[in-house]
Amino acid sequence: MLPGVGVFGTGSTARVLVPLLKAEGFEVHALWGRSEEEACCLAKELGIPFHTSRSDDVLLHQDVDLVCIYIPPSMTRQIAVKALGIGKNVVCEKAATAVDSFKMVTAARYYPQLLSMMGNTLRFLPAFVAMRQLLVEGYVGEMQVCDVRVYGPSLLDQSYGWTCEELMGGGGLHTVGSTLIDLLSYLTGARAHRVHGLLRTFVQQNGLIRGIRRVTSDDFCFFQMLMGGTGSSSSGVCCTVTLNFNMPGSFVHEVMVVGSTGRLVARGTELYGQRNGSKGEELLLGDSGWVGPEVKEMPLPHLCGLSSMVKALRQSFQAHEERRSWARGPVATATTFEDGLYVQTVVEAVKRSSCSGEWECVEIMSQEPDPNHNLCEALQRNKN
Amino acid sequence: MLPGVGVFGTGSTARVLVPLLKAEGFEVHALWGRSEEEACCLAKELGIPFHTSRSDDVLLHQDVDLVCIYIPPSMTRQIAVKALGIGKNVVCEKAATAVDSFKMVTAARYYPQLLSMMGNTLRFLPAFVAMRQLLVEGYVGEMQVCDVRVYGPSLLDQSYGWTCEELMGGGGLHTVGSTLIDLLSYLTGARAHRVHGLLRTFVQQNGLIRGIRRVTSDDFCFFQMLMGGTGSSSSGVCCTVTLNFNMPGSFVHEVMVVGSTGRLVARGTELYGQRNGSKGEELLLGDSGWVGPEVKEMPLPHLCGLSSMVKALRQSFQAHEERRSWARGPVATATTFEDGLYVQTVVEAVKRSSCSGEWECVEIMSQEPDPNHNLCEALQRNKN
Repeated sequence: MLPGVGVFGTGSTARVLVPLLKAEGFEVHALWGRSEEEACCLAKELGIPFHTSRSDDVLLHQDVDLVCIYIPPSMTRQIAVKALGIGKNVVCEKAATAVDSFKMVTAARYYPQLLSMMGNTLRFLPAFVAMRQLLVEGYVGEMQVCDVRVYGPSLLDQSYGWTCEELMGGGGLHTVGSTLIDLLSYLTGARAHRVHGLLRTFVQQNGLIRGIRRVTSDDFCFFQMLMGGTGSSSSGVCCTVTLNFNMPGSFVHEVMVVGSTGRLVARGTELYGQRNGSKGEELLLGDSGWVGPEVKEMPLPHLCGLSSMVKALRQSFQAHEERRSWARGPVATATTFEDGLYVQTVVEAVKRSSCSGEWECVEIMSQEPDPNHNLCEALQRNKN
Repeated sequence: MLPGVGVFGTGSTARVLVPLLKAEGFEVHALWGRSEEEACCLAKELGIPFHTSRSDDVLLHQDVDLVCIYIPPSMTRQIAVKALGIGKNVVCEKAATAVDSFKMVTAARYYPQLLSMMGNTLRFLPAFVAMRQLLVEGYVGEMQVCDVRVYGPSLLDQSYGWTCEELMGGGGLHTVGSTLIDLLSYLTGARAHRVHGLLRTFVQQNGLIRGIRRVTSDDFCFFQMLMGGTGSSSSGVCCTVTLNFNMPGSFVHEVMVVGSTGRLVARGTELYGQRNGSKGEELLLGDSGWVGPEVKEMPLPHLCGLSSMVKALRQSFQAHEERRSWARGPVATATTFEDGLYVQTVVEAVKRSSCSGEWECVEIMSQEPDPNHNLCEALQRNKN
């Protein structure tokens, strides 16, 4: 039996998600928005019976068994952790910091019977599912290099907000780069142990953001990851990622894996491959023929991936009679909160590298930092 | 009147160059090869009246006024410097080290009336000539990012040789990267002041190179250059270059410049552009329709560029009655020996960066290093 759903957020993802959920048979019972007005407006548009601007009203809603959180990164941790504490299943977007991600991991570990997954849709896109399968089967031989490029128009909102602020989780690296960091660990079966990066904010002001306000989030980002794998085939893989969001009117989403005996390239939602020795590329998986609405803010790979993710959620829940129970199988490859912490750690290491100019190690937090740490350090300094 | 030409080298470039020279009306009088046999064989094939394996025989040949040097990097400096000393005009490929390049610069400065240019053909390719013109005219607005990628099959020769050896000037960075470093300074009008890079040799042995022999030259290279320009528009440009020569059966040669109001992309020999606000890319310069022979080892942009370079040389020389005199105009944008030293300095900085993991400064040699420097240091160390 499918669980009742509560949705947090009134942005473009929430707007696309609700119809997809309904199409799969989920009932969406409640919607939260930052203001009464925003919530009311979107609830009416999408036909959701209940709306509110108070988070507890959704979290404690009797008919809500699954909470989908698509709100600014800085608010995610609080809602996600609380939802798990109340016994609800959670699908959510990334948090703003590694400390927040760590708190989410702690909560997820504490309630292992609840579904807790990051909404990284790329892992569900058929092109990447097929790509991973082919990599496992040895299509490219020993993996050597992954090369990813995503080009597109500005990620900034119409008005000044978190998307402009690096510290609030804005910027190409945090918003888009994080989905790619996750994807590359999914594809290679390995994690980055050292990273190097360069971030730039070329457009610091525009027609809407001016005066004393300045954009601090990156619109160009370029990073390398050296993967240290568990298996021999994935250790030593070099990943390079180029993100450029100063290219209005374009959208490029290309993920290439080059190995010793061939290569695979996903362009948008299509997958191509070429084995060494063959004359040309072969189309391995064509366009899925997306028939849903086109969404300006949401590139097709994310849109199609979101649709596939919702299908997987339906399969996961429908196996059980009890509304809150779910089967691991259909969502086994989803991004876990642990993966989310890894991704956030890499994002922060890339930012550190961009400041230091040096390769930075990816060290995943194993305990929560002491909130008095800075204070203690200051006291220590004063003593000496 | 066109000068008589002497050619050094029996490789693929020399083989293509001679017919191009003849087609423009140059007479090729002499050919040098490393062995009598190689020289004889190619001279017969190309119809060159004189061949030898002794360099002086070409350099001192009465009818030779222009010397074209296409030999392994480690031998280039010696021939180029000697040719200038004998009063011959010189077109040559890159040297192996910055010290060699510096010696060539010294010679070129000493004989300013002689033509001395590096044979970087990309500066002559119509797509890049047009691209530079459009950049100057402000097509992209303020330049932000240059993104270059070149993918192709292995650069290694059939048998073990200098192409396998990093110290002999082999590898993707030295062979292909150097032409791109030069091209980017031509396009942006700026030079790199800091670089960061990563080199890898994924294929260290193959069917032909085995046993105790190992390839040390890079087959994957990835570097960033921060440009510090003379003009305000080119300072602060980030250049990223990805080279991958583990992709048999493919050839990608893409140079993109992104600016504040638009972008330009050269794919192969074609030039495309898109201004912000326009719906799609426009073709600015189509394929030149190369009608000459296809050369497996030589990608089309280099082949077409070589053809254009030979045309420019013809224009430069035909303006004058005297066989050795030339006009600066047609070859004014060619890569000078000074540019060659800059390129070599960047190449070495990228290699240093790949070892150190840090950003390295590009500091161009202003005097020849003392050959006893290492000895002195050793003595110094012993004293302490």
